Amino acid sequence: MSNIAQITYRGVENSVKSVTSKVPTLGPFDVLVKVTHSSLCGTDLAYIPYGIALGHEGIGIIQEIGSAVTQLKIGDRVGGGYHRGSCGHCKYCLNGQDIWCYERVVFGEGDYDNGTFSPYYIGRETYVHKIPDAIPSEFAAPLQCAGATVYGAMVGIVKPSQRVGIIGIGGLGHLAIQFASKLGASVVVFSHSANKEAEARSFGAEEFHPLDDISKIAAPVDVLVLTANRYPDWSKFLIKSVLARTGTIIPLSEPSGPMDLPSFQMFFDGYNVRTNLVASRGVHNDMLEFAARHKIKPTIETFPLSEEGLSKAIEKLKAGSVRYRAVLVAKGDH
Amino acid sequence: MSNIAQITYRGVENSVKSVTSKVPTLGPFDVLVKVTHSSLCGTDLAYIPYGIALGHEGIGIIQEIGSAVTQLKIGDRVGGGYHRGSCGHCKYCLNGQDIWCYERVVFGEGDYDNGTFSPYYIGRETYVHKIPDAIPSEFAAPLQCAGATVYGAMVGIVKPSQRVGIIGIGGLGHLAIQFASKLGASVVVFSHSANKEAEARSFGAEEFHPLDDISKIAAPVDVLVLTANRYPDWSKFLIKSVLARTGTIIPLSEPSGPMDLPSFQMFFDGYNVRTNLVASRGVHNDMLEFAARHKIKPTIETFPLSEEGLSKAIEKLKAGSVRYRAVLVAKGDH
Repeated sequence: MSNIAQITYRGVENSVKSVTSKVPTLGPFDVLVKVTHSSLCGTDLAYIPYGIALGHEGIGIIQEIGSAVTQLKIGDRVGGGYHRGSCGHCKYCLNGQDIWCYERVVFGEGDYDNGTFSPYYIGRETYVHKIPDAIPSEFAAPLQCAGATVYGAMVGIVKPSQRVGIIGIGGLGHLAIQFASKLGASVVVFSHSANKEAEARSFGAEEFHPLDDISKIAAPVDVLVLTANRYPDWSKFLIKSVLARTGTIIPLSEPSGPMDLPSFQMFFDGYNVRTNLVASRGVHNDMLEFAARHKIKPTIETFPLSEEGLSKAIEKLKAGSVRYRAVLVAKGDH
Repeated sequence: MSNIAQITYRGVENSVKSVTSKVPTLGPFDVLVKVTHSSLCGTDLAYIPYGIALGHEGIGIIQEIGSAVTQLKIGDRVGGGYHRGSCGHCKYCLNGQDIWCYERVVFGEGDYDNGTFSPYYIGRETYVHKIPDAIPSEFAAPLQCAGATVYGAMVGIVKPSQRVGIIGIGGLGHLAIQFASKLGASVVVFSHSANKEAEARSFGAEEFHPLDDISKIAAPVDVLVLTANRYPDWSKFLIKSVLARTGTIIPLSEPSGPMDLPSFQMFFDGYNVRTNLVASRGVHNDMLEFAARHKIKPTIETFPLSEEGLSKAIEKLKAGSVRYRAVLVAKGDH
C-alpha cells in the first residue's frame, strides 16, 4: 500500500503554505487519485483561516485501490472532493439525498488533511465520480462543486417552459447560465458588470440587465437563482414585473446576515425559497453526463499546481478578476 | 331578477355597522346565495379599517341564477367568499393555480360591496363550491378559507411518512392538525397554551410541546407549519433536533416585519420556504371531499348573524378567546 510523499496546501495566517507528509494507508473502500487538475472555489477562501488542506474540485487518475473496491480500477479518470462520506443507511442516504446525511463528511466538515490541491487525493470509491470521456480534465474540475451546485439547484425545479433569472456571473453564475439554457429555459442575467453582456449571451442568456436598472426586463422570471455573495435588494426583485407569482428564489451562496425576505410579498405573491448544497451523488453523476452531452464548458484560467500558483489564483479570486474559474494544473498535465 | 333589500356589515371607525342597500342585478354567470352561515377570520379584522363589506367564509342556498349558469341550480347548497374571480386564460388559470392569477378578485382586492356577512352573497358560478352532504353548514363555513388554506398548504407537500410540526392552535391551527393527521403524517403541535394539549391530541396530534420549551421533541419534524401571527424564534426551530435537514417552512399568515431567516442554517441544512394563499378552485373542491370523507370538523362557537352578533364575535376574536372559529348563523338557520 501507498507510502508516498504528499504535499497539502493549507491556510496559514491568511496565505497558503505547503505542508509535507505521507499519504496514509488506504482503507478498503478508498482509492488513491493522482491529481492532475483542481479548481479554486470561493469556499476554499472561506476555509483558509482554519488551516485545513484546501481543494475540493479535483480531477485525477486512480493510482491505487483499496482491497474492497469493485467499481473503479487503476487508471480510471475520476473527480470529486466536496462530498466525502455519508452514513449509507439514513433516510437521506436511502432517498438519494446523501449530501444532507447528518453523518456526512464534506470539505470543511471533517477529513481535514486531505484536499485536491495536492499530488494525491484519497476518496472513497463511491464518492468519486468517473468523468465522461468527452470532458477534458481542466473543464471537468469546476463541475465537481460549481457545476454540481447549479445543476443540483435547478434540475427538477426549472421547467423548460420557464424563464430563469440568474444574478451574478462568476464561477457559479457562468455555469448556471449554461445549465439553465440547456435545461430548456429562457435565461435572463442580472449583473453589476455591463461588460459581461456579450459573454453572458454566449453562455446562453437571452436577456441581460445591469443590476442597477432591471426595469427593461421583457417579462417576469419564474425562478431566481442567486449566485452572488450578497442578497439582492428584495424590493427590486420581488415585484410582479421581475419575479412572477409562485416564483422560486434559489440562494446558492451563503451571504452573511439574515435572509430578510419581505413577508407581505412572500405571502401574497406565493414566493418560495429553495436552498441547495452542491449535489447528492446520483445527481452529480447525472450532471456529468448532462454536461458532456450538452457540451457545457466552464471558462477557465490555468495556474500551476504549486504554492506559488495557488497563491496567485487565490489573490486573483479575492480581487474578483478570475474569468471564471481558476484551475490548478499539476506539472506534466498541461 | 333580484331587487332585494340587502344588509352588509362594514368596518366603521374600528367597529362594525350595518349598511342597507339593494342586491344588484345578477350577471349572467352569477348566483345569488341566501347566506345561512358565515364564519369570522382574522383577515376580516385586518379589513375593518377599510370599510369594505366583511365576510368571506360563507355557506348558503342558491336562490337565483344568472342566465348563463349551467352547473348550479336554485336550491343548491354552496360555499365560498374568498376567491371571487380570475381571468380564465393566463398560465395560472390554465394550470390549476387560479388563486395566483394577476387579475384575480379576492376578498379585500375588489368586489368591496359584497360579503358573506349579509343576507345575500353574489358569487360567480365557478367560484362557489357545492358542499358535500356529509358536512353540516356550520362546519362547512370555516373550511371555505381556513380549511382551504391549511389543506392547500400541505397537500402534495406533506408525505404520509413525515412528521409535521404545527405552531399555534387557533382557527387555522386546529384544522391544520386534523388535515395533517388525515394526510397520514405524524403531527407535533407547538403552542403557548399548555391547556390546549388534550384538545390538540383529540384533533390528531401525537406530540404536544409548549413553545417556551420544545426540547422534549421526540424527533425532528420535516415540515413546519406556522399558523400564529408571529414568526417563531428561528434559532429555536431551525436546529437539527427540531426541523430536519431539507425541511420545509410553511408560513400561513402574514406577520408584519421581514422573514429574517438565518442564512447559515437555511443554506447548510437545506431548509426551504413554501408559501400558500387559501387554495385554487380545484384544490378547494378536493379539500371539501377530503374533509367529508375524513370527518374533519372545525370546533366552532356560534353567534347570530346580526350587527350585535358580529360585534361580539369580533370582540372575542380580538381577545384571542374564540375556540376555534366563530360562526355567524342567520336567523332561522340554527
